[in-house]
Amino acid sequence: MFTKTITPRFGDADGLRHINNTRLPIWFELGRDPFFRFFNPDMLFEKWNLIMAHIDVDFVAPLLLGAEIEIRTYVAKVGNTSFTSYQEAWQNGQLCAKGNAVVVHYDFKTRKPLPIPDDIRARLLEHQP
Amino acid sequence: MFTKTITPRFGDADGLRHINNTRLPIWFELGRDPFFRFFNPDMLFEKWNLIMAHIDVDFVAPLLLGAEIEIRTYVAKVGNTSFTSYQEAWQNGQLCAKGNAVVVHYDFKTRKPLPIPDDIRARLLEHQP
Amino acid sequence: MFTKTITPRFGDADGLRHINNTRLPIWFELGRDPFFRFFNPDMLFEKWNLIMAHIDVDFVAPLLLGAEIEIRTYVAKVGNTSFTSYQEAWQNGQLCAKGNAVVVHYDFKTRKPLPIPDDIRARLLEHQP
Amino acid sequence: MFTKTITPRFGDADGLRHINNTRLPIWFELGRDPFFRFFNPDMLFEKWNLIMAHIDVDFVAPLLLGAEIEIRTYVAKVGNTSFTSYQEAWQNGQLCAKGNAVVVHYDFKTRKPLPIPDDIRARLLEHQP
Repeated sequence: MFTKTITPRFGDADGLRHINNTRLPIWFELGRDPFFRFFNPDMLFEKWNLIMAHIDVDFVAPLLLGAEIEIRTYVAKVGNTSFTSYQEAWQNGQLCAKGNAVVVHYDFKTRKPLPIPDDIRARLLEHQP
Repeated sequence: MFTKTITPRFGDADGLRHINNTRLPIWFELGRDPFFRFFNPDMLFEKWNLIMAHIDVDFVAPLLLGAEIEIRTYVAKVGNTSFTSYQEAWQNGQLCAKGNAVVVHYDFKTRKPLPIPDDIRARLLEHQP
Repeated sequence: MFTKTITPRFGDADGLRHINNTRLPIWFELGRDPFFRFFNPDMLFEKWNLIMAHIDVDFVAPLLLGAEIEIRTYVAKVGNTSFTSYQEAWQNGQLCAKGNAVVVHYDFKTRKPLPIPDDIRARLLEHQP
Repeated sequence: MFTKTITPRFGDADGLRHINNTRLPIWFELGRDPFFRFFNPDMLFEKWNLIMAHIDVDFVAPLLLGAEIEIRTYVAKVGNTSFTSYQEAWQNGQLCAKGNAVVVHYDFKTRKPLPIPDDIRARLLEHQP
């Protein structure tokens, strides 16, 4: 598991005074940063080799301004050419949102998926829940 | 079906020079605006009665800078206390992303779901695909 | 003058139930899109030749959810290698925010400013207030 | 001085592979969070008493993906009813952006500015550069 602590910003809350739902995909993208580095150690866009296929988020309880939010990032599944991250957002000891993202190992020149190398597969599998 | 045309902004593209995945939930929220008005004709936060339960997005093809994007918004399903919107993002005649959102009719004081009134149900069902 | 109509999104309002201040630089960037095309007719990042030097925004009156916002974009000044846009955000007949952006014509390879060509200068000057 | 460390997110970089200019007002708002708490210790929107009058940002050097960004937040000036924050964004030992924000102590019921109380004034002045 990787964790990332987020301080919610004043403008992250919407008119309901809850954190707006659209912030979760943004924070979950930030939470996947360590996995991006497995595939792209130098974080260079010129050599980038991942593409998003799917995201989903379930909203369990409102997130609020004023207390830190912990994003917990796991690997749910590793397929042949893609992996699925599973992520949770916690605040004040409560699970508030959770979601999945399917990320494909991808060759942008040939526009084809690439197998996930064994060494990266092994590193991903260390982060199962 | 409701449609909303989006001009992608310079900063909506990320380092891959594709529209970043996190923009879709934002544009889909904007596309659901007409449904919000079914439940909240005055768009007043003080009387707001909807809460998000779920979103998902499938990324079919990259969205790019330089051409307008059409968000098409349908109703996929109307349940007892919630409805599901189904949305698509089109650019240059191509379906590029699609997704669902589950929106719950909700009483923020009692913290309980509310039945969807018959008149609103009928209006929602007019927007099935 | 160029104009761009914005439908504010539910999540653009913050906990004060005003549009959050951070949305203005985003909408103003979108409003400058026609100027970007003067310099980059194909909107290709590979050939991009503009870089931001400065932005400022004055908040005159709150922008709210529920009514469209018009972004009006002018050219305030054209210098040797840069130009300044002046922009306003109007809602319900009221000026709500205004601001400037200094955009530099720039060679990303040599990392040096470039003179603004006469034909583009003439086109920019047509958009003075 | 208050500091806040930001991990730039994949989607914070735009097609130039620089952090997009519109991210700075967002991170600077987050950096002002401790000042918001001087005026609103409980961070309750119902009692909120601050309103934005102005922001500006100067872009000194590109911010990039892959290294943390430090937001440094100072008080530049304390007036009768408002204060000005001065902020900097540093990455890899380099000043990359800087800016000011004018924040007004404000009564949302009467729609009038309020004097800054002496105790808060004293706390603000401790954060001069």
